[in-house]
Amino acid sequence: MSNDLKLLSRQISRWVLESTSTAGSGHPNSCLSAVEAVTALFFGGTFRAHLADPHYPTNDLFVLSKGHAAPLLYAVYAAAGVIDAAELSTLRRRGSQLEGHPTVRWPYAVAASGSLGQGLSIGLGLALDAKWRQLPRRVFVLLGDGEMMEGSNVEAMTLAAHQGLGNLIAAVDINGLGQRGPTIWGRDLARWRKFGESLGWRVLPVKDGHNLGELTEAWAAAAETDGRPTLLLLSTIKGHGVSFLADAPDRHGKALTDDELQRALMDLPLTVVPPIGLVPNPPDYQAIDRAHSESIPTAQYQIGDMVSTREAIGSAVTSLVTSHQEVAILDAEVSNSTYFNGAMEKASDRSLECFIAEQVMVGVAIGLALAGRQPWLSTFAAFLMRAADQLRMAPYSAAGLKVVGTHAGVSIGEDGPSQMGLEDIALFRSMGATVLYPSDAVGAFALVGLAATEKNMVYLRATRGATAVIYGPEAAWRIGGSHVLRQSDSDVATVIAAGVTVSEAIEAADRAQEAGLSPRVIDAYSVEPLDSATICEAAKWTGLVVVVEDHRPAGGLGEAVAAVLTEHGVSTTMVHLAVRNRPGSATPAEQLHESKIDADQIIHVITEQLSKK
Amino acid sequence: MSNDLKLLSRQISRWVLESTSTAGSGHPNSCLSAVEAVTALFFGGTFRAHLADPHYPTNDLFVLSKGHAAPLLYAVYAAAGVIDAAELSTLRRRGSQLEGHPTVRWPYAVAASGSLGQGLSIGLGLALDAKWRQLPRRVFVLLGDGEMMEGSNVEAMTLAAHQGLGNLIAAVDINGLGQRGPTIWGRDLARWRKFGESLGWRVLPVKDGHNLGELTEAWAAAAETDGRPTLLLLSTIKGHGVSFLADAPDRHGKALTDDELQRALMDLPLTVVPPIGLVPNPPDYQAIDRAHSESIPTAQYQIGDMVSTREAIGSAVTSLVTSHQEVAILDAEVSNSTYFNGAMEKASDRSLECFIAEQVMVGVAIGLALAGRQPWLSTFAAFLMRAADQLRMAPYSAAGLKVVGTHAGVSIGEDGPSQMGLEDIALFRSMGATVLYPSDAVGAFALVGLAATEKNMVYLRATRGATAVIYGPEAAWRIGGSHVLRQSDSDVATVIAAGVTVSEAIEAADRAQEAGLSPRVIDAYSVEPLDSATICEAAKWTGLVVVVEDHRPAGGLGEAVAAVLTEHGVSTTMVHLAVRNRPGSATPAEQLHESKIDADQIIHVITEQLSKK
Repeated sequence: MSNDLKLLSRQISRWVLESTSTAGSGHPNSCLSAVEAVTALFFGGTFRAHLADPHYPTNDLFVLSKGHAAPLLYAVYAAAGVIDAAELSTLRRRGSQLEGHPTVRWPYAVAASGSLGQGLSIGLGLALDAKWRQLPRRVFVLLGDGEMMEGSNVEAMTLAAHQGLGNLIAAVDINGLGQRGPTIWGRDLARWRKFGESLGWRVLPVKDGHNLGELTEAWAAAAETDGRPTLLLLSTIKGHGVSFLADAPDRHGKALTDDELQRALMDLPLTVVPPIGLVPNPPDYQAIDRAHSESIPTAQYQIGDMVSTREAIGSAVTSLVTSHQEVAILDAEVSNSTYFNGAMEKASDRSLECFIAEQVMVGVAIGLALAGRQPWLSTFAAFLMRAADQLRMAPYSAAGLKVVGTHAGVSIGEDGPSQMGLEDIALFRSMGATVLYPSDAVGAFALVGLAATEKNMVYLRATRGATAVIYGPEAAWRIGGSHVLRQSDSDVATVIAAGVTVSEAIEAADRAQEAGLSPRVIDAYSVEPLDSATICEAAKWTGLVVVVEDHRPAGGLGEAVAAVLTEHGVSTTMVHLAVRNRPGSATPAEQLHESKIDADQIIHVITEQLSKK
Repeated sequence: MSNDLKLLSRQISRWVLESTSTAGSGHPNSCLSAVEAVTALFFGGTFRAHLADPHYPTNDLFVLSKGHAAPLLYAVYAAAGVIDAAELSTLRRRGSQLEGHPTVRWPYAVAASGSLGQGLSIGLGLALDAKWRQLPRRVFVLLGDGEMMEGSNVEAMTLAAHQGLGNLIAAVDINGLGQRGPTIWGRDLARWRKFGESLGWRVLPVKDGHNLGELTEAWAAAAETDGRPTLLLLSTIKGHGVSFLADAPDRHGKALTDDELQRALMDLPLTVVPPIGLVPNPPDYQAIDRAHSESIPTAQYQIGDMVSTREAIGSAVTSLVTSHQEVAILDAEVSNSTYFNGAMEKASDRSLECFIAEQVMVGVAIGLALAGRQPWLSTFAAFLMRAADQLRMAPYSAAGLKVVGTHAGVSIGEDGPSQMGLEDIALFRSMGATVLYPSDAVGAFALVGLAATEKNMVYLRATRGATAVIYGPEAAWRIGGSHVLRQSDSDVATVIAAGVTVSEAIEAADRAQEAGLSPRVIDAYSVEPLDSATICEAAKWTGLVVVVEDHRPAGGLGEAVAAVLTEHGVSTTMVHLAVRNRPGSATPAEQLHESKIDADQIIHVITEQLSKK
């Protein structure tokens, strides 16, 4: 295998310029900075893959963390003959797979990128999967120096070193220029080296990041694992190869005009059409059957048992992890609170402690999902906010993460607002995730089972304190379902609750019954999607609707219900009880009372509303 | 000043144990780990402050990043006589200022903490303010070693070194134990040192983090600035001082039982009541008047001008920064896209480039707000998600940040979904922020002016592309307001839009008019709070409501409208046009069309709904 790297890189540079100019936008300069590095990796003999078969298990993988260099990635695949060069001219056009930033809609993109600082965590997940499965796969991640300022990268570096991932190679394209000016450390390779080494990485500097020989050797050296992950420091020039683009400020994210393109191509003459770039085959893969059972865990609780849903979810996941070998477990240093510790012990060969670093936890989970695993991750609902951007990006990598957020709402009690997840339902609903919120331990088990069979990202919300088991083994559960817990022909109101407020709704209904009023009670455990048929029918019958939730008013159960009611034109008045105060410390019961989401308040608003009629 | 540090630390340790035991919860072990360090800082002569006057401008400041050690902070203030020791027994009780984790409800808390990894960024903001104002103030931040895994801390360390903040001292309480087990680096001080130095910090190790003499000297040395921020590495023992707590696993976040408390106190005998701990005065403060004008910027646009709202917001902020000297400007390396570059140049003495690191940007902004400034910060709406947790915590520090998110929605066009803010309204609404979304440049100016006078956190959402100016100088704007743009007695539907969809609504209305249908059009520029009176009145009059927004369906304008309509029992059908597809690359107009949020779709649904009648 002896590709002409010089010719190939020239061709790739020209395609980058041509495709972005045709598109009228894109980031040619950020591509030119890394053309030689990527050419040397793919065609210099180190990278092994059946490129056209992107899911071949022993393929090396290339994650483009600096996603704005997508045109470079597309040009490399054209140079390898995997896609047709003509397709490059569809870049950034409606309907084209060649999007402005890569997503998995293009089958050769390993992961979606474009929100900077996420690729290394994803690469870590992919490399970890290979280690767990003992696959001879190496994972290469290309990062920009600007994005290295994102703390998420340091989380990934620290964790990758701790895991001894010698199969993970991160190359930083140090061109010293960000979007608006110089990067914080510039091209001070000594500084970068000290930084990488302090985090336990082997560091290999490449003084001329455009020298194909030096690059080819560096990639080969990087792929020789010594048990540490490797950081390749590429000293590069943004816009390299074109005189008026090289190191030019104010050119970030700007395509060339036609005139500029002609001038630029003169700097990059190509008299011979290069032959297709060849990539060595990876080692053959011997498939190993992994145990997978269609059975889902079943609960062993009696009605009336007091169990927290976080504990029940933990038990269910512990059960799931045995029957489902593709399940992987991730924790951010709270597994003894989230009850994920049981599953982690049981499947220690598929579990990762991420320490207090939620961003890398979600990034790794995306990587594991892309490697075919089903990642289950958990922390306090409040702290999932730390990884909101990684969660937002997960669907663009088609990563159906299973996320458990415990300690939701004011009902955690004394710890105060910093520990209360009060915005989590809004977050996950806005991202299109399925949101499930059990009110008891039986529901928790059932919803873990449903989540395990769901392709979409699922968010399971869990309560800290114990709640009474109210469902028997016969209860039927489905995504988009609900349970009507109290119902009669004389219902005067519908109370819709979920999770911890279900018991408040039941108590309110029972107390109202004594006063001669009968509210219907619905447990809307499937917050997203909602059981709109049951809710609309109840609202039509009873008129008044009361929604009660342990969450901020915006984006939660209440607004989901309001959306359904208005969409179906149901004529009703809805009272929305949600957390509108600024909670402090107090007992769980006091918190529910102060936030006006308890039985007292439910009865109060029903009485008040009915008296208005 | 010669406090008996031994006695004081003993007293503080006892109070920590007693108050957490009385509360029945809390984190006594995490407090004991740092009792001597905090005692030596406050009472060893280095820390200078009028403790009882927490806002005295030259006070040194102490930020407790490891917020779960709140009982220690409260005990220190009791030892200093600022609060009554008896109040300690109200810890974690309903109504007490002494919350489980500190918030600014307690006036002596510098900042709210409890979501780990945020205190250093806040301290950076406070230290930066002091540098800008040339105040002889030092900022001390106490961090846990577990929380150092959060990448946000590295963002702050990198930036603090870059800013040369010699007045910033971070002490890491390295007790080697997290909640569920050992921390990732344990007590390997050499490793910590290498890490700190690689980021440009001066590093001072304290081999015995419980030795009051060593600690006192270390704090004094740390406060002697050499132009670099200082990292104090405290080798400590969790649960220090109590035999059965010291280095004990499985004791995180657990208060002692009564029996345990008695045994523990025997390990910490106190035969003399220590006198009140004295703290040296800070240098006197000479007040300097800072220019502040009540005038707000006025726009100079003509109806029909094509201007993007991001550019107009940038111009307005550039104008604001001159008249309002308390305004500070922050950027995350996109100021040439957000148009914050003008303001940054104009007020370079109050501007900070945070590079590509959104978390530290928001943390610094909280610090600046706590120092009395009005921070304006900006990046792409999508990338604000990276700092969702810092934004969530801002209200608990009463920090009324002014946040501008540009490039919102699918209307950005070709760059694709990674760059599209589609969940941002849900995020900010769920946090209780005021959400303003101008549709033209005149509105952008007016809303910047409104935001500047608003105490609450404000989120301003901006569009990438140019939109036509539709408002004249006479238009009146208010938080909670809206503009009715098309109205007649024969209106058959109400179209509610905001931002980029307003022009689509106008176009739809004008085209519908030609077909003999007249929809009312409302520009709901104040998305939160919404103008419920105008919306309900329109809905009652017209029946049909169509909401059209460039955002995901959950938590945005549509659900805000649905909430208002159902709350007021308005009988109507609402069609909610929002981004329900998975966008790729396409032109802005194609994106609006594909997501079915353009004029065509508005007309289509109005026609369809009316034909059903």
